[in-house]
Amino acid sequence: MPELRKDPVVGRWVIISTERGRRPSDFGRAESPPKSGFCPFCPGHEDKTPPEVYASRDDGTSPDGPGWHVRVVSNKYPALQIEGDLDKQAEGIYDRMNGVGAHEVIIESPDHEAELSQLPVGQIAKVIRALRARVLDLAKDSRFRYVQIFKNHGEAAGASLEHPHTQLIATPIVPQRVMAEILGSNQHYALKERCIYCDVIRQEMSFKRRIVTESASHICLEPFASRFPFETWIMPKKHQTFFERGDEADDVALAAVLKEALARISATLNGPPYNFVVHTGPINEWEGPMHFHWHIEIMPKLTKVAGFEWGTGFYINPTPPEEAARFLREVRLEGEPTEPTEPTEPDRAAAS
Amino acid sequence: MPELRKDPVVGRWVIISTERGRRPSDFGRAESPPKSGFCPFCPGHEDKTPPEVYASRDDGTSPDGPGWHVRVVSNKYPALQIEGDLDKQAEGIYDRMNGVGAHEVIIESPDHEAELSQLPVGQIAKVIRALRARVLDLAKDSRFRYVQIFKNHGEAAGASLEHPHTQLIATPIVPQRVMAEILGSNQHYALKERCIYCDVIRQEMSFKRRIVTESASHICLEPFASRFPFETWIMPKKHQTFFERGDEADDVALAAVLKEALARISATLNGPPYNFVVHTGPINEWEGPMHFHWHIEIMPKLTKVAGFEWGTGFYINPTPPEEAARFLREVRLEGEPTEPTEPTEPDRAAAS
Repeated sequence: MPELRKDPVVGRWVIISTERGRRPSDFGRAESPPKSGFCPFCPGHEDKTPPEVYASRDDGTSPDGPGWHVRVVSNKYPALQIEGDLDKQAEGIYDRMNGVGAHEVIIESPDHEAELSQLPVGQIAKVIRALRARVLDLAKDSRFRYVQIFKNHGEAAGASLEHPHTQLIATPIVPQRVMAEILGSNQHYALKERCIYCDVIRQEMSFKRRIVTESASHICLEPFASRFPFETWIMPKKHQTFFERGDEADDVALAAVLKEALARISATLNGPPYNFVVHTGPINEWEGPMHFHWHIEIMPKLTKVAGFEWGTGFYINPTPPEEAARFLREVRLEGEPTEPTEPTEPDRAAAS
Repeated sequence: MPELRKDPVVGRWVIISTERGRRPSDFGRAESPPKSGFCPFCPGHEDKTPPEVYASRDDGTSPDGPGWHVRVVSNKYPALQIEGDLDKQAEGIYDRMNGVGAHEVIIESPDHEAELSQLPVGQIAKVIRALRARVLDLAKDSRFRYVQIFKNHGEAAGASLEHPHTQLIATPIVPQRVMAEILGSNQHYALKERCIYCDVIRQEMSFKRRIVTESASHICLEPFASRFPFETWIMPKKHQTFFERGDEADDVALAAVLKEALARISATLNGPPYNFVVHTGPINEWEGPMHFHWHIEIMPKLTKVAGFEWGTGFYINPTPPEEAARFLREVRLEGEPTEPTEPTEPDRAAAS
């Protein structure tokens, strides 16, 4: 059983995955995913994954057979284990609990080669629908407090299988980073009676230089204090706490912006490895106010996190977000007209 | 001038190094340090670095010439700039200040090939003396609040030059990670009238299974909630807030434990890339209580930090620290007797 352990000084949790129990010799250089060969996520290999917990499928096709568009299965090597009780306990001055949680894989397409940014908007909307459906379902399990959605694209970003997929892990505690954002939002609200993310969106729409693209419903921007070169956030323009509560029209609207953001990053940086994470409100047992605003953080892996960052939590970013936004706006996407369609001057009105 | 920017939600600072202003094409795959060729840190090339700010040298030799054992120079491409005022100001809802600070390189030895763990204890003690002297000197500059000492060893850990070196960056604010440790320590002290790190040391000395090595003055252990496989901490056994306030006997005592820790990591994991950071008390303008206990955190780079970690601040560690400690204790170091000298059973008394 994996174990959750809490650092006694700063309250940071770690998952000690005792099952895998890696020995020194397991940390080789040969961690790259096999580029070819057998893929358990490809159609026809449905029996090589745990049974599906969700799928978008053609009418008349059967679970765990072909005919799916998006398929969600449990991770075969889960970081947390679905069965069991938390069994929270002290070990002297330390705190631990059983590593109970859900770890699922969202297979984004039957096509082994298709990157998320290359899928049609309708297909990406199906992926978003799958993510939302899984969060809503996992929220029914009262052991869980948060569902972290994340994508690792490319080996340098931690992907171990090539077939395009997103993952989620449901955790029995609200993660520290999400908690910090909620507390920051609550503090701002207590002072100003406004959502801090709504304030950010307002200021960015007036400043314009950090905006990558926007639609009627969503904004895509390089944050003022970007940790990484070309770090890119997507937020709903209208205040919404929970990512998972969008309807199907909203799936399509978000899919369009996510596709464009990923396509611009890919075109500008030559298909870099990247991670993205969704930050949404916690599930179950939340007490007191919560003025949170869900968002997606996309982090291309272009620089190495080194000692200074580990020591301080400070990041050194060599590319000002204003510059990054300009590159992302001005890159030409396939099938786009020659002239960039996004505003490049601070004094031009934003497209909406 | 580089710029310090604060995330408006979580208060995380980033350094935007506007000078380097990296364009998309600068993020190539060819970031590896040149394995051979010209090295500005080698003896005889002293004029290829900024002038030295500290050196341990043979009697009768001149600054910025050969004859040094340890040499400290400003980083030629500093993340923060030494001249100027902070000029703190708002930008709408955001906060920024000028990127003022010091960025120095501690060249650990004239020998281009010698890794820190291979240097004699006396030479490592000179490196520690240099680090302590530089922190004490930088603390005289009232613009600075913290000095972060860190080492990047190996390309995967962010090293851009091969010649062994440590770095330090003096920052005008206390970094969030250090602040979290101080606040955690203060909270524990307020509750218990005890230092949390002293409590950790006491519990680990009684449990023994996470101890790698110890001496009369220092303990080296795998922390209970290790974020990374083989994460290793060194702490003084006696409560001390400030790393920089040791005397020369203490330099030697710390050097011996640091050398052994690094040598055991290197022998166990086949010379892995690693980072280490020193966490010490802040300098200047600290108000109120501070019950901090300095320590060194060594982090071998064996796994990739991926989306889940970025999203949550949770880490997934595949190697339980009890296992890691056992491997590190039992590995045979060069010139050591056949039998491991450290206790491997929980019920045996710890060496001291």
